[in-house]
Amino acid sequence: MSLNLKTHTEHFTNPLYLESGRILEPYDITYETYGELNDDKSNVIVICHALTGSHHCAGIYENENKAGWWDGLIGSGKAIDTDKYFVICTNVIGSCFGSSGPMSPKVPHHEPYRYKFPVVTIKDMVKAQRILFDRLDIHRVHAIIGGSMGGMQALQFAIHYPNFATKIISMAATHATQPWAIAFNKVAQESILKDPDFKQGYYDPEVIKEQGLSGMAVGRMAGHISFLSHESMRKKFGREYKRDDGLYELFGKFQVESYLEYNGYNFTKWFDPLAYLYITKAINLFDLSRGFDSLSEAMTKVTAELHLISFRNDQLFKNFEMKELSDTLTEVGNKNHHYIDVDSDYGHDAFLVELDKFQDYVSDVLK
Amino acid sequence: MSLNLKTHTEHFTNPLYLESGRILEPYDITYETYGELNDDKSNVIVICHALTGSHHCAGIYENENKAGWWDGLIGSGKAIDTDKYFVICTNVIGSCFGSSGPMSPKVPHHEPYRYKFPVVTIKDMVKAQRILFDRLDIHRVHAIIGGSMGGMQALQFAIHYPNFATKIISMAATHATQPWAIAFNKVAQESILKDPDFKQGYYDPEVIKEQGLSGMAVGRMAGHISFLSHESMRKKFGREYKRDDGLYELFGKFQVESYLEYNGYNFTKWFDPLAYLYITKAINLFDLSRGFDSLSEAMTKVTAELHLISFRNDQLFKNFEMKELSDTLTEVGNKNHHYIDVDSDYGHDAFLVELDKFQDYVSDVLK
Repeated sequence: MSLNLKTHTEHFTNPLYLESGRILEPYDITYETYGELNDDKSNVIVICHALTGSHHCAGIYENENKAGWWDGLIGSGKAIDTDKYFVICTNVIGSCFGSSGPMSPKVPHHEPYRYKFPVVTIKDMVKAQRILFDRLDIHRVHAIIGGSMGGMQALQFAIHYPNFATKIISMAATHATQPWAIAFNKVAQESILKDPDFKQGYYDPEVIKEQGLSGMAVGRMAGHISFLSHESMRKKFGREYKRDDGLYELFGKFQVESYLEYNGYNFTKWFDPLAYLYITKAINLFDLSRGFDSLSEAMTKVTAELHLISFRNDQLFKNFEMKELSDTLTEVGNKNHHYIDVDSDYGHDAFLVELDKFQDYVSDVLK
Repeated sequence: MSLNLKTHTEHFTNPLYLESGRILEPYDITYETYGELNDDKSNVIVICHALTGSHHCAGIYENENKAGWWDGLIGSGKAIDTDKYFVICTNVIGSCFGSSGPMSPKVPHHEPYRYKFPVVTIKDMVKAQRILFDRLDIHRVHAIIGGSMGGMQALQFAIHYPNFATKIISMAATHATQPWAIAFNKVAQESILKDPDFKQGYYDPEVIKEQGLSGMAVGRMAGHISFLSHESMRKKFGREYKRDDGLYELFGKFQVESYLEYNGYNFTKWFDPLAYLYITKAINLFDLSRGFDSLSEAMTKVTAELHLISFRNDQLFKNFEMKELSDTLTEVGNKNHHYIDVDSDYGHDAFLVELDKFQDYVSDVLK
């Protein structure tokens, strides 16, 4: 059967009341669907994307060759089987792939918001999705699944819309972003802000895409460190030196340096720097206990069957952060949660790369 | 007794033949001594400094208030007791505190070398020190001690000048710099290089010190991540927000962000960006096996009593890297080495901060 990939954008004119007290109005939400909604609408699965992900989580667009970011997991006959399920993935607000973000036109003058865009939180991203699903007349879903920032959204759904999903899988995430992860974001943010071509937010996006933005490239390099691990870098690159580079040249490069450069500079061709600032801010602000007396109190809200998956060698959100969440659920008497730590050396990006280590688990949960 | 701190600079007119095949000529070495050399010159201890360290490892200069970087360890009655030992610490070549480096005047025109300075290696740094000690008529020392890049130097001494030291202590180091550490250095290097105020190496050092160099500040922030650990950051900063900053302000700051900013920008006031490029290059190139068939072959050279100290939660040079070195020594039949893993959550900088966890060990070794 076909994947039945469709991309849509919905426009909303009612105000979106944000956690900060500010208002986003109007706003757009871009999303993608796969598979077919069944008659009683009982086969919906929501996928939530990470920092630089998008709604395009599966399949390949015409005239492109790169598949969606979770294509190995989502599709006909795959763990998230589009022959059975109707899968929806929305681009988060604050991002740059169609949903409203800092480079969206601000009414009435239709210039980009830039710094006038309000700070959004993971809770706001989830709220916007909930409103989209309302419009689509979907009031309950079979499952919500996400990794990294997507895993944060899944958890936020679990406590703020406890009756919305039957099952929730959150992986490679945390209950509250720790200073270690905030520090990596800080390097990227500072590097973007201090790049003169960023022009204090008044850059020309076309110029950035064409010429690159070295500040964002450097920031992304720091990000890539946190996505991998000592062990996976050692396996991938060792101490291999770039062919044709002299060992004693100041600018001679190890393979790992070449990898970081390529990925860093390539990144500036497809991601927006202001969106990077806003979304990393949302990640930094993520704390499930905010608005509650404690994390324990927040966890009493959970009613869905909740699955927490960590990756042993995750360097960004440490596996014990998920364990802490699981322990807290146990403490408050939640008997409907499951925690597994995937044995992986890869690092944070294992949730994107080592699908074979958890796809059977996901498939079993969905059954 | 007094520390008897003395700072000296020696000038060398003979060429220094570097590992790259290039020559440094003439060159200066700045060093500091503490305590008194005894009559039979049997009480010398050599201290080797880290990336941004200097020869000033103990005591406080007149009109300053900051003590040397290992002041807690070195001094009258301390683990490295200057009442008993004559302690020497030299500023490595390639650095910026008196020994020849990229901002030193190049003869004959006396303009700074800048990129014309040759790439130096840890082996070169050690060779230069060995030549200095020759001039001081010191041909054998009681011990060599260093941490991080200083620990690399100590190890390089062990295999290239095996008869020079009776005891060697290397801590928080590795046998060969792994891609994980190279990646952190890459972020800093790229960030410096892309800062327009760096002017492709033709910056004015006075302007940098005055105005800061944001590229180097960002790079140093990445460095600070690698010096700490998830656990120590959590303990130090938690999710504390900066007083007076609004939680939902895009530029509101967590304490950890404020810490990184302060340390990053402050760093540019006292360290030279070209020296940073050259010394990180030397660290990246560090590999004890270079010039040998294998690490095992290199280890057969060791004759000194060798002590390897790792720190359990070191995020820059992982504790198992030292363990690998220890295992290799064992494999080649070396019976005169000792490996300890210090139980510490702090991270790499534990070798500078948690002296109480290893000072007794150091003091016992020296006895």
